[in-house]
This record gives sequence, structure tokens and C-alpha cells, in this order.
Amino acid sequence: MKKIAFQGRKGAYSDCAAHYLFGEDIETLPMDTFEEIYQAIENGEADGGAIPIENSTAGSIEANYDLLYKWRHRIVGEVMLRIEHTLCVMPGVKVEDLKRVYSHPQALAQCSKFFAENPQIKAVPAFDTAGSAEELAARGNRDEGAIASAYAAKIYNLDILKAGLENLRGTNFTRFYAIQKTPADFAETEGAKTTLLLELAHSDSVGALYNVLGCFAKRGINLTRCESRPHPDKPWEYIFHISFEANVSDPRAKEALAELKNYTSFVYILGTFKKGVVETLKY
Amino acid sequence: MKKIAFQGRKGAYSDCAAHYLFGEDIETLPMDTFEEIYQAIENGEADGGAIPIENSTAGSIEANYDLLYKWRHRIVGEVMLRIEHTLCVMPGVKVEDLKRVYSHPQALAQCSKFFAENPQIKAVPAFDTAGSAEELAARGNRDEGAIASAYAAKIYNLDILKAGLENLRGTNFTRFYAIQKTPADFAETEGAKTTLLLELAHSDSVGALYNVLGCFAKRGINLTRCESRPHPDKPWEYIFHISFEANVSDPRAKEALAELKNYTSFVYILGTFKKGVVETLKY
Repeated sequence: MKKIAFQGRKGAYSDCAAHYLFGEDIETLPMDTFEEIYQAIENGEADGGAIPIENSTAGSIEANYDLLYKWRHRIVGEVMLRIEHTLCVMPGVKVEDLKRVYSHPQALAQCSKFFAENPQIKAVPAFDTAGSAEELAARGNRDEGAIASAYAAKIYNLDILKAGLENLRGTNFTRFYAIQKTPADFAETEGAKTTLLLELAHSDSVGALYNVLGCFAKRGINLTRCESRPHPDKPWEYIFHISFEANVSDPRAKEALAELKNYTSFVYILGTFKKGVVETLKY
Repeated sequence: MKKIAFQGRKGAYSDCAAHYLFGEDIETLPMDTFEEIYQAIENGEADGGAIPIENSTAGSIEANYDLLYKWRHRIVGEVMLRIEHTLCVMPGVKVEDLKRVYSHPQALAQCSKFFAENPQIKAVPAFDTAGSAEELAARGNRDEGAIASAYAAKIYNLDILKAGLENLRGTNFTRFYAIQKTPADFAETEGAKTTLLLELAHSDSVGALYNVLGCFAKRGINLTRCESRPHPDKPWEYIFHISFEANVSDPRAKEALAELKNYTSFVYILGTFKKGVVETLKY
């Protein structure tokens, strides 16, 4: 049985995503930090990992952009999961009993309207969503709640006081990558997506990024994402993460990569994989 | 005396930045959230605000990108502040006494090596750096510390146990914007920088972003930043924040903006201002 690492406690959204990415017949390994996922893959403790990379309302999960650059594991799959936050409480607790609600700062931000409408309830930052539910169940406090998945509520025997707590229902999706040590053997042209890392050769010169994007645009290759992250060793220099809709083995992509050498000092293919689809949480 | 709003408690890095951006002779107004800065400017309670926009190691402060789009206040100045984190404790406390150290998650991440070297000390997330120092002083606990500025240590009468706690000394800078309700009257060509917001007209089509960058590149205008943020109302659509080195009144910039209309459904000039320089904390 494949072992798939994810960040958080059992019941985390990443735990759910792991099943969509690698199938139902897996064992999921909870990790305290994102970096431990990459380490577990590196040392063979895990066969793969499920990492959140972008949320449709909160934006990029920047830590994973940086860790993809640092560890260079390969992206082998993608899924967009519809996120539904639930307010979890000890059995029988009502909204008017609550004084504090714990969750990850991003989940708290996504539910800011709930806190604006209930000013007597304090939003308390925690390291993760499912962990907030687990800790609430352990403490058993009846004036506290946690924002987590319905799956977490089920695992930790908590009541769901309110489902769909997020500000914008039906617009909150998180994109996850499946990662592993070796590239996927994905040969299809249709629905293929490639993600690469690059560093500009002359970042201060006019048109540096324009020339890079031109390698793809001139060949009719659609860019889906162009994200820059601070270079870990050079202040105000960037590592670009570029995703495009083509297989890396596609002749147009090969041409683009050849031309790219003129404008970059570093290029690394993170992976070619099947473009992800939207899934609704079934847990 | 000008009133300048910032997020955090007295002694926050933003409090320091406000003085570089608007001069020494100001009154700084601490706010609980970034959004309250924008509200205070809108309703005239504050004459301006100092907001962090990018950190050289942790990346963009995404909340402020989103609030600039939401409120449309104008950028009138910029500064790059060298950040030096200090470990603040109650007078006489030693490292070996510490069990918990509080700070903003970003500051904790920037000091991750300290926690790796001192595994007996738990990193505890809090809403801000200076607030962690203020709360530590109020609690008076001798097994706790806070990561904040030296200025915060001074204000709250805490000892500085260790200065320069960050992983990469001398590489941690935060870029701040000065914002206010009306544009700056900045007519100089030399050292001018402009930031604008835009939405792509045909985001799914090949070369959409390439064509936008071309408006600048073809006229020899250097782009300093191209950042995308999730569109608040449209999942997987983006608002782009683009900065370039030219005054908006420059004929080349005028031409670029005219051509930009072909590729965008929305453009808004956040401001033309003097490009910022690096300052070292003198507090």
C-alpha cells in the first residue's frame, strides 16, 4: 500500500486531497510541517506527498513554492478540491456559548464574515484546521470551537454547528499537487500541463520576463500561471514558477525550452502531468 | 501634525516605516487589522498609512495587495527597511529558561533556525511582533519570549536576549508603501516608479500576459514586479499588480497605457512615486 505524506492532522483537507491524487487504497502519513513531507519522500519513508499550492480566495501557498525549489521533487498530478469549512464544537454546544474559535489563520480569514457577525467570538490562530478540531476534542471546552473539514468533525466526534462557514460559498477551492521523487510517465498531449522553475539571466534588463513569456506565446502555448518567489540567497531576485498547457515532450514545448536558454540562468522541469479537475469533498 | 495609521502595536516595524515614509514629525495610529488603515484613511481619521507589501525572504504581503485593489487608495512613497528581529524577554531571563516564544508566523518562519537549534522552545503563533512583546511584558512570564523589533523591546521595557535572530542576517528587508487618499504630485522623471492594477481581457487566450508585458518592454520601460492575486469575485481569475520604472506622465508610459487597453478589461493607476531606498532601523 502506497504511503502518502501530508501536512496536518488526520482529517486535514490535504488528507482528503491525497485520496483524490493517489487513489483510495493508500495509507496517509500526517506530518507537522510541509518540509517533513519532502524529507519523507527523500528518505523513502513516503512514496509521495499531497501539497496545497494555491487557494482560489487566499492565493498561493508560498511555503510550497519555496520547498518545490529547494527539494526538486517532481509534480505528478493535480486536483482542485472544493473547500467547505465547518464550525466544529463539543456535542450540544451552541453558537451563543462560544468565546473562542481556533483554526489556521487562512481559514480564519476565509470565515471573517462569521467573526464580524459574532463579535463576542475571538478568532484564535492555530497551526492547522484539523489540529484545532483534534485539540478541541482533547480539551473538551464548551466555550470553544474549531474551523475544520466535516471529515475532521467526524474523526474527532465533534458536532457540526454550521457547515459552509466560509465568506464565499462555492468559490473556495484549493489546488493540490501530487509529488514524488521521480517524474510521472505521462505521454498524453491532450490535457497535459507542465510546471517549471526558472531564474532570469538578466533580471534588471528591460523585457526580461517578456522574453521568457514570448517563448511560449509565440508557439501558441497557453500559460496558466506565472508566479515569482523571493530567491532564497539573493535579495530582490526571484525564482519564477511557470505553468503551461503542453506536454514537455511536445515539439512546441521543446522549441520553447530551447529558446528559453537565451533568457534564463536556470531552468528545472518540475513535471508534466494531467491537468487537474474540480472535486467536491465526499468525506 | 500628520496622523499615519499602521497595523500592529506601537513598536511594530510598520510604526518605524511610517517615520521613514512621512517624516519624524508625525503621530502614528496603531490599528488591529490592515483593513482598518484603509478605513481610517477613507473616513479622514488618518492622513495616510504605512503598509508592508513585500518581504525579501517571505515574499508578498498578500492581504495588502487585495486591500489596495478593494479600497483604491494611492501609493505616494516607498521604503525598503532592513528588518532585524530581536528575542525579547523579561529582565534577567536566559535562553535556557524559555519554553515558549511568541511572534507573527512570518517572523517565526524567518527565525526557524533558532527554533531548530533550541528544540525545547516552542514557536507559538501570534497576531503580530510588537503585540507579542507588549503581551509578554503584561504577563511577565519568565519562561516566555517574544520576537519583535529592538524598538518594541525598548517601549515595553524588555531585555534583548539576542539581536539578529533571523536565519539570514542582512538579507531580510521589507518594502513598505506610503498610501493616502489622493495621488502624489510627483513630476520627476528620474527615479520614478508607477504601480497599476489590471485585469486581462482574455485571460484564457494564449499570450494574454505576454501582450501586456510587451506594452512596456517594446518601449524600453523596465518592469520591477508583476504579481497576480485571486480575483475576489471570479475563481481562477486574477488581478495583476504591475510596477514599472517610469513616471505615468512620461510619453512612453502614456503610449504603453494606451496600447494596454487592447489587452485589458480594467486598469487603475495606484500611483507614481519616488522609487524607495534601503534604510536601516535606527530605533
